[in-house]
Amino acid sequence: MFLWAPMTHASHHLTLADIARHLDVDFEGDAGQPIRGLATLKEAAPDQVAFLANRAYLKDLSTTKAAAVLLHPEHGKNCPVPRLEMANPYLGYAKLSQLFDPLPARDITGIHPTAVVADGAMLGEGVSVQAHAVIEAGVVLGERVVVGAGSVIGADSVIGDDTRLHANVTVCHGVVVGKRVILQSGCVVGGDGFGFAHDGAGWHKIAQLGGVVLGDDVEVGSCSSIDRGALGDTIIGNDVKIDSQVQIAHNVIIGDHSALAGCVGIAGSTKVGKHCMLGGGVGLSGHLTICDGVQVTGMSLVTNSIHEPGVYSSGTGAMNNTQWRKNAVRFKQLDEIAKRLSRLEKSHRSE
Amino acid sequence: MFLWAPMTHASHHLTLADIARHLDVDFEGDAGQPIRGLATLKEAAPDQVAFLANRAYLKDLSTTKAAAVLLHPEHGKNCPVPRLEMANPYLGYAKLSQLFDPLPARDITGIHPTAVVADGAMLGEGVSVQAHAVIEAGVVLGERVVVGAGSVIGADSVIGDDTRLHANVTVCHGVVVGKRVILQSGCVVGGDGFGFAHDGAGWHKIAQLGGVVLGDDVEVGSCSSIDRGALGDTIIGNDVKIDSQVQIAHNVIIGDHSALAGCVGIAGSTKVGKHCMLGGGVGLSGHLTICDGVQVTGMSLVTNSIHEPGVYSSGTGAMNNTQWRKNAVRFKQLDEIAKRLSRLEKSHRSE
Amino acid sequence: MFLWAPMTHASHHLTLADIARHLDVDFEGDAGQPIRGLATLKEAAPDQVAFLANRAYLKDLSTTKAAAVLLHPEHGKNCPVPRLEMANPYLGYAKLSQLFDPLPARDITGIHPTAVVADGAMLGEGVSVQAHAVIEAGVVLGERVVVGAGSVIGADSVIGDDTRLHANVTVCHGVVVGKRVILQSGCVVGGDGFGFAHDGAGWHKIAQLGGVVLGDDVEVGSCSSIDRGALGDTIIGNDVKIDSQVQIAHNVIIGDHSALAGCVGIAGSTKVGKHCMLGGGVGLSGHLTICDGVQVTGMSLVTNSIHEPGVYSSGTGAMNNTQWRKNAVRFKQLDEIAKRLSRLEKSHRSE
Repeated sequence: MFLWAPMTHASHHLTLADIARHLDVDFEGDAGQPIRGLATLKEAAPDQVAFLANRAYLKDLSTTKAAAVLLHPEHGKNCPVPRLEMANPYLGYAKLSQLFDPLPARDITGIHPTAVVADGAMLGEGVSVQAHAVIEAGVVLGERVVVGAGSVIGADSVIGDDTRLHANVTVCHGVVVGKRVILQSGCVVGGDGFGFAHDGAGWHKIAQLGGVVLGDDVEVGSCSSIDRGALGDTIIGNDVKIDSQVQIAHNVIIGDHSALAGCVGIAGSTKVGKHCMLGGGVGLSGHLTICDGVQVTGMSLVTNSIHEPGVYSSGTGAMNNTQWRKNAVRFKQLDEIAKRLSRLEKSHRSE
Repeated sequence: MFLWAPMTHASHHLTLADIARHLDVDFEGDAGQPIRGLATLKEAAPDQVAFLANRAYLKDLSTTKAAAVLLHPEHGKNCPVPRLEMANPYLGYAKLSQLFDPLPARDITGIHPTAVVADGAMLGEGVSVQAHAVIEAGVVLGERVVVGAGSVIGADSVIGDDTRLHANVTVCHGVVVGKRVILQSGCVVGGDGFGFAHDGAGWHKIAQLGGVVLGDDVEVGSCSSIDRGALGDTIIGNDVKIDSQVQIAHNVIIGDHSALAGCVGIAGSTKVGKHCMLGGGVGLSGHLTICDGVQVTGMSLVTNSIHEPGVYSSGTGAMNNTQWRKNAVRFKQLDEIAKRLSRLEKSHRSE
Repeated sequence: MFLWAPMTHASHHLTLADIARHLDVDFEGDAGQPIRGLATLKEAAPDQVAFLANRAYLKDLSTTKAAAVLLHPEHGKNCPVPRLEMANPYLGYAKLSQLFDPLPARDITGIHPTAVVADGAMLGEGVSVQAHAVIEAGVVLGERVVVGAGSVIGADSVIGDDTRLHANVTVCHGVVVGKRVILQSGCVVGGDGFGFAHDGAGWHKIAQLGGVVLGDDVEVGSCSSIDRGALGDTIIGNDVKIDSQVQIAHNVIIGDHSALAGCVGIAGSTKVGKHCMLGGGVGLSGHLTICDGVQVTGMSLVTNSIHEPGVYSSGTGAMNNTQWRKNAVRFKQLDEIAKRLSRLEKSHRSE
């Protein structure tokens, strides 16, 4: 009944015709050509499909050995091999990439004998609960949920259909996770927010009584932290993509379709709009409101709310250390420099 | 004898009188009013207690539907519902929050059948060692210690009374953890410090022979790292609060009652005083001394010791990217700008 | 056959003669003096060896109580105890430190009864697979590999001889790890890279079909993330040392012997040369090339490729917040300040 079998090396036996059908595009060429994977234009073998999604690689098109190339119609004429034309070839590449992911092939339905599933947990059809996973009491797993080896789901949490927890993930108690969510290894959803009251001498912990709600199609990167709310919930909208090493504090709200690159940190109660993009290492102070459509470039610190869509930045670019030392010293004199300039201007005008 | 039962949904059956007694305050109102939780002034239902700890929310006081409000006596007269007056209502909120935390109710005394406890480990009264936890040889657990699912405690480590390791925590070998400490999921206490000697061609690892000592009442956030010392120990004082995604390198010493927000990084051998507060993403270079009572604002880099209490900052605030690009270019010319200004001043004076 | 025994407290019974032999140096003194460990000059007891590797500690030499001191010949004459003279005493310290690491002594060959090893996994001689570890199908472990408690090795990954995974490490599927590699607790090697295509409305995941290749003698710190490649692999060269809380994105390449301090973040497809050193919290944008021999100081952001070896920096040093606020405001006016200066210079010259 339950077999924990080795990973199947995907011998997909896909053909070029299968690929084209998956993308819903026409093509001219050998429909039966076997396709074993994807590669760049430069590296593709004759049984791999390549793609052209960035003009910087146009130079590699005329010499590609790929079985076919996914590209925009405007580049079709320069292609030496069968063409799969799409308005958005990068999107086509994303869709094809799913066909070659070896992970789904190894998900065996069932509960590994070493997994611990509490009485009263409710498991949907087709779930896969892997070795040493722990499902605490009151948990509800939707259909086809995969719980990777060593992952722990705390009491009363609810996981939507088709969601995957990779290995060693922790979902704490009382967390709600949507459908088709992907939680990478080592991430923690629902750890306590950082809340303490000071009595003049030291700290008193504020029990974090809220939860975390992750929308549908969310992804959380490896070793990232999404803390639970103090009273209300921390809320991550639908289709929000969160990279590795990210910290999201209690009661943060992230709007749908926003993307947070690696090492981002967002302090408590800040609200980020929809379709925002935060570059790597960006920091947002607490209690801010960032409107929809804001982009913040890497390692910028945002300490005030942003009410206009656009691109925002802080900091200084890197330079040679010798040069930097001189300039950094001057930064400390900057207010004085500005005042001296004003005095000089005034004096000059009065002559 | 050992029952691994579902989480008890806290049906506390607390009344307003219980709440007031817990805070040691008087009140006028319905002593028997059931209280099922806490909420903000705006969102509180008639069976929830609210609090006013920030003047920004004074506007919500007159319309609150809370069963009672925790507030400073100066705001008492505007409160439409029973008052719980305290000089520090935020502290009162912290104390009440503990009453509604569902976690303690589910801690079942005993060792889960799947936990691995080495012969020779010593376990205090009332410990809870949860599913798939691993307690290595020589470990000593104090009374009522909770070891969450999947957590590992390395050989010869000592854990004080009433300390809680959430799920998937790692305490490495030879670590000393105080009483009432809270380790959030995914954190690692006692990984090797980053020490290597270079022989001109490559690196030779320096075995990290020190340990980590965490004082009483310490909290460590999810996915944070506290590295073990090279020779002596890394030392975290009493009542130090450490948020998620924090990195504390080998032989760092943190004084009592200091608080480190998310994503802070402290390099090796730096000593931070008591009652310091480091904002999110702050970095401290190695071998520094930071005196007591220092606050550093978010994402600042500190490369020199600080000998005076106060607030310290570095960096630049975020601005529109177009504006930023122009200014960032000028930063690289800053030393030259300052020199040009001096020349102009000199020339002007000599006229 | 398999005994899971308590950690042996290393009663090495080493003598001063053993120490000198290990370092291949001569000495004058009591060859039979027992040595139980290493310490600083100041703290060393009469059965500990100390070292002098930094002139700042020369003041402690004349009063040291160490059994012997590892030092450069130029300092030998001031040493009150037996001398172990080496051109690189810090390297000598590194070599000695290995003798006193208690961990190897506790590695018991075998597979803990609670570990899950898939049929078809291949395990070399002398491996130690600890409690609740999970070895998935197709995995190959070299000789003497140690897999710590709770660690998971995904399908088809290959781990080289003498590599150690501490507790709760995750190596995802299809990852290749070299020999003598050390993976600290909580790190994740091979989580998905952060790749999505946008269709105008939302995100489509790009399956991350590449892997991760770690060279020989690599170390990865606690809670660090090394993401798998999108098509090709993420590649970490030989003898690369990576500290805690580091994020390495998909398809990054790091050259041999480079060292990355804590909290470093490297965005996708960036290539770092050999013998580079990145300070704590440094960020590298994506698709850059950093040549060999580059050092970047702490918390600097690098957004352009670097083609010359040297030291690079960005940002501003920390200062008092009151002073900082004034200067940071001026930073936003910097372009305007520079223009005003130019106008004044021009006007002055034309007089």
